[in-house]
Amino acid sequence: MVSLRRFVSRESTVLEEAMREDLSEALKGNDLLLVEVIEYALYSGGKRIRPLLAILSARVCGRMDMTVYRLASAFEYLHVATLIHDDVIDNAMERRGRPSVVKQYGLAAAILAGDWLHARSMYLVGRYGGREGLEVFCRSTTGMVDGEFLQLRYVADCDVTEKQYFDVIHRKTALLIESTCEIGAMFGGAGKTERTALATYGHKLGIAFQVVDDLLDYLGETSSTGKKTGNDFVEGKITLPLIHAMNSSDKQVREVLMRLYESDRDDPEAFGRVFEIIDKNNGFISARHAAESMVDGAVEALEVFSGCDDQESLAMLRSLAAYVVERNR
Amino acid sequence: MVSLRRFVSRESTVLEEAMREDLSEALKGNDLLLVEVIEYALYSGGKRIRPLLAILSARVCGRMDMTVYRLASAFEYLHVATLIHDDVIDNAMERRGRPSVVKQYGLAAAILAGDWLHARSMYLVGRYGGREGLEVFCRSTTGMVDGEFLQLRYVADCDVTEKQYFDVIHRKTALLIESTCEIGAMFGGAGKTERTALATYGHKLGIAFQVVDDLLDYLGETSSTGKKTGNDFVEGKITLPLIHAMNSSDKQVREVLMRLYESDRDDPEAFGRVFEIIDKNNGFISARHAAESMVDGAVEALEVFSGCDDQESLAMLRSLAAYVVERNR
Repeated sequence: MVSLRRFVSRESTVLEEAMREDLSEALKGNDLLLVEVIEYALYSGGKRIRPLLAILSARVCGRMDMTVYRLASAFEYLHVATLIHDDVIDNAMERRGRPSVVKQYGLAAAILAGDWLHARSMYLVGRYGGREGLEVFCRSTTGMVDGEFLQLRYVADCDVTEKQYFDVIHRKTALLIESTCEIGAMFGGAGKTERTALATYGHKLGIAFQVVDDLLDYLGETSSTGKKTGNDFVEGKITLPLIHAMNSSDKQVREVLMRLYESDRDDPEAFGRVFEIIDKNNGFISARHAAESMVDGAVEALEVFSGCDDQESLAMLRSLAAYVVERNR
Repeated sequence: MVSLRRFVSRESTVLEEAMREDLSEALKGNDLLLVEVIEYALYSGGKRIRPLLAILSARVCGRMDMTVYRLASAFEYLHVATLIHDDVIDNAMERRGRPSVVKQYGLAAAILAGDWLHARSMYLVGRYGGREGLEVFCRSTTGMVDGEFLQLRYVADCDVTEKQYFDVIHRKTALLIESTCEIGAMFGGAGKTERTALATYGHKLGIAFQVVDDLLDYLGETSSTGKKTGNDFVEGKITLPLIHAMNSSDKQVREVLMRLYESDRDDPEAFGRVFEIIDKNNGFISARHAAESMVDGAVEALEVFSGCDDQESLAMLRSLAAYVVERNR
């Protein structure tokens, strides 16, 4: 059986070819700067996890045909659209080790290119996923916006509970991954059981993915992630390691943390202090455990496919889940 | 037969009710600020021209049922989404005589609320307009982005030709109005002839609408339009009155205009000079003629419906066309 790495490399090549075909069709005769911005945004070393999930979901449900790559492109388009708009909102200068779209091309181009990718993704889902697929997809894209609003509401609010944190990351991240797997399943002709199983897998994987992302914001190596650590602290995002640390520390320590979040977010030394407190209170370890247990749940949901014809795809779904907690970027 | 004003008022009431129902369904349990921003953006005294066009298009094709209001809402959502994002891009502080969404709620809320409305509009078109409707709709929304890029390319470029101007406004404005009428027709069960006729009507109406908008940027009364005049000059947008004036003036005058656009766009007196030159060279009159002749073409395209059962709706489509050139806001 091929390794995950080799599988991803093989499938990404086919996917990127399908994306190029779709773009050359969709952007024919369009303004050359628009074409350039879209290509800059889409071909930037992304991990292509979402389209791979759509492809694998369709395959474990028994459908192998090549149009799945067109459908799968939609999830990458939408993901990239949200990254572009997020970078505008956060005024982020870098993305994956190079200038963000907003930095490279300016505000107007960034907003508009995000809108373009958003529209095209809807078109592709409507075309290849049908009306029901579009319904699932739109529920996730509108839900993502809701998640972003919720996140803004909780900025620098140290009283955020674990439940509220999971609610935010469910909407902000897991919904799209869940709908990717679910729509892939529907495209694959899934029955209700398979569809629900893949939605559950996607949901749990998405949650684990975001928890790990939030861990990497503390523990990642810039050389791997292409991002500086401590961004979330500067932006006042309260994530799981901190929540766990708050839950297991005394009142005095909690007050120190609150003060640091309320007034010292621009101070690099303050980040060091927060880091130390989280570490000492096992916030990193327990957040990692939470991610691991989510991934276990994701893999369990795949049980219904244990007898499926395409054992390679099933194994890849399992490997992808394992990768999500092991990854360093 | 009812007047256009009474018709618009009656239909807008039903439409706004349908929008409220849709929003309460779609935003159930969502963040309260998101709900507030969406309502602020949607209920702001808009003219509701696009949804009315969808409704009327369906009716002249023979379909009267109430779900048309749900479909029609999509075109208002998308229109408002583009206004919100445009105001972010242009850093516009006002819209319809009140603070713009970006001014009132900030950058993040404005970008996200635009995305939300965009997503919901796609959902509604997919649901009520079917796969083919979604295809037409997405072609227009991606085309609008292309039009915005094209417009950015031509900023302060006094060599822009009439053809290039019409190309920009076709994509930027007319495509959505065209697709609104076309999807309304499809919803109404139109045959090929009716569908093409309404697409043509929408296209010509959209072009005329934008030419008049560009005229109002020079000639409008702030008390009616809710906008200051001279915005396009400040932003370097070259519109039809100027192009016509350039075409009919001598080299010396053209050089004066170019200089004003290149270096004096922040100077209120410069706008006065531009205005004067356009007026003297009949730029306003000839741009208005262009709009009128487009509207005549739009009304002609309705000929195929002359024997249709719903004469009131047909009359309203004609009246709306006349309104587009007569309007002062």
